[in-house]
Amino acid sequence: MKAVVMRQNELLVEELANPEPGQGEVLVKTLACGICGSDLHMFQHCDHVLDTFKHGGIPISFNPDQGVVFGHEYCAEILDHGPGSPKTLKAGTRVCAIPHMITPTSFHHVGLSNRYPGGYGEQMVLAERLLVPVPGDLPSDIAALTEPLAIAVHAVGRAQLQGDEVPVVIGCGPIGLAVIMALKARGIGPVVASDFSAKRRALAEKLGADVVVNPAERSPYATWAELAAPGTDPRISAAVLGTEAQRPCVVFECVGIKGLIQQILRDAPARSRVVVVGVCMESDSFEPIFAIRKEVNLNFAFGYTEEEFSRTLHDLADGRLDGAAMITARIGMDGVAEAFDTLKTPEDHAKIMITFD
Amino acid sequence: MKAVVMRQNELLVEELANPEPGQGEVLVKTLACGICGSDLHMFQHCDHVLDTFKHGGIPISFNPDQGVVFGHEYCAEILDHGPGSPKTLKAGTRVCAIPHMITPTSFHHVGLSNRYPGGYGEQMVLAERLLVPVPGDLPSDIAALTEPLAIAVHAVGRAQLQGDEVPVVIGCGPIGLAVIMALKARGIGPVVASDFSAKRRALAEKLGADVVVNPAERSPYATWAELAAPGTDPRISAAVLGTEAQRPCVVFECVGIKGLIQQILRDAPARSRVVVVGVCMESDSFEPIFAIRKEVNLNFAFGYTEEEFSRTLHDLADGRLDGAAMITARIGMDGVAEAFDTLKTPEDHAKIMITFD
Repeated sequence: MKAVVMRQNELLVEELANPEPGQGEVLVKTLACGICGSDLHMFQHCDHVLDTFKHGGIPISFNPDQGVVFGHEYCAEILDHGPGSPKTLKAGTRVCAIPHMITPTSFHHVGLSNRYPGGYGEQMVLAERLLVPVPGDLPSDIAALTEPLAIAVHAVGRAQLQGDEVPVVIGCGPIGLAVIMALKARGIGPVVASDFSAKRRALAEKLGADVVVNPAERSPYATWAELAAPGTDPRISAAVLGTEAQRPCVVFECVGIKGLIQQILRDAPARSRVVVVGVCMESDSFEPIFAIRKEVNLNFAFGYTEEEFSRTLHDLADGRLDGAAMITARIGMDGVAEAFDTLKTPEDHAKIMITFD
Repeated sequence: MKAVVMRQNELLVEELANPEPGQGEVLVKTLACGICGSDLHMFQHCDHVLDTFKHGGIPISFNPDQGVVFGHEYCAEILDHGPGSPKTLKAGTRVCAIPHMITPTSFHHVGLSNRYPGGYGEQMVLAERLLVPVPGDLPSDIAALTEPLAIAVHAVGRAQLQGDEVPVVIGCGPIGLAVIMALKARGIGPVVASDFSAKRRALAEKLGADVVVNPAERSPYATWAELAAPGTDPRISAAVLGTEAQRPCVVFECVGIKGLIQQILRDAPARSRVVVVGVCMESDSFEPIFAIRKEVNLNFAFGYTEEEFSRTLHDLADGRLDGAAMITARIGMDGVAEAFDTLKTPEDHAKIMITFD
């Protein structure tokens, strides 16, 4: 098969042996695969990321010298089943799947493994137990958004929303955009989205943000304060809650760089609930006095459950999540190296999708 | 009146003018007042603490050169009422009160103010609206524990306990001990308490900790894991929850020194809820990767509500909170300077109480 292989800091289209499904596994043909920010990060800072994972107890590891096929945001079609399969889903079925290969003694992450190539290649081997069939005629590239959107659905779930919150989304990269979509799909809003980039703010608006803010010009929390003022929620009668009841602030940190958590602690209103979705790979610092005085709740989010993954795919199929707006470019395997270059300044893009045939 | 005055880094018993109650205020005679760890910290690092408060937006400030009478954990008796008082509580009534003096334009903290002397002196002026009468014949020194115990009651409230948690209390100083008492009063347990000091561990056991751990010898989370194993909660049937259901870990950080939050993130089990009660006055650092991978919830706690304060006093009166065990020494005003010296190595003491007459 052909695949984009990361080898010695290059991304090259190479001919590889077709993968073979073992017990509990299926062989699939990749139909579409998204480029994830974490693939970029891994490509640029591979040793550092692998060291951080090891240090932090995240069981993702591989030998970058042996070549790795990235890609964990995929939609694929079943080609064949491994030995002893019940074949519940027949060959030809389109599927998505959580990119994990779990045995009682080992864990591999599809697309971040020397053994299990990801969706930057024509074929993959996936865990049969984790397959979720793509409903109806949902386009494969939209279905491939399930994985990144499940991250956002999970993060929004961690916030334990009551319905009256005014969310503030910090950072409108792919994860921030996905969080905006997940919030809107649940009817939460108005959603304030903050990003220094005008292009990203435009994307955020397109994907459903109600108010976008350039933090260089105005604090997103000033916007929050206006929107959260008593009497601003048509569903909540001031007669019930009193005129003092401000709507809660829930901040989604979707950037993942050093110093951002402290910035939120300093600037967000008292009793903010903060969901940290951005993955900062460095040691970070903060001043506890702010968190204490404001009684902030810092909630870290990671991954998603099988239920959330499956629900996200069905929400895409039902149109509750509007995936189409998220895809800003479609490329072939031969365009991946250039796309990685483009995404170094990712302002124009939400999600670049690799499609096959 | 006589009072212990902090002046130029000394604590001296001095003769001061009696305070006079303004509108909305009452004059009281101090009956008992606890020495708080924060008084010690303020005495030793006054400028740093005031700077940190100012930086962090905590409205507590005073001029240390003008002399300050500490003491915000008090029980007192009403002597007189300010002008225009409804005198709902008569002279002679014993009271506790949140140590705040709030007007539409100003905030003062009793005992951390040049204007409002605290309970290290014979008389104080308090806010009439905040007075809570001491029920029945509850001894005044026990009633004076209301304030520090309310901190713990509030922190335990922040944890939103469901009843099946196995709490781990890190640090058995006065706040950690108070948290242990507040947990036991709510029937939560078994409670694991961790402290390097054998004397503090003995105090923790006396105040209700079910298992005490010396973290130099054993991780408190190893103890948690044993106690939280499936089937260890007699109230929860394994038939209902399955044999895999581990009881949740709720960590109370009651130390407030740099590095401790990272230690918890590194060592505590996945999905721990951490309530930060200790007040670290410095910038702190942590590694987000641990918090993310484990999906930790960090909940910062500060102060208490009027309802919690009043409830705590009543729980002391009803014996739900056993205050007597908390008081490890009683001194007069002339013993305060020495007590501050003793508390530099505070292993022997939970709470030192200043009593009057």
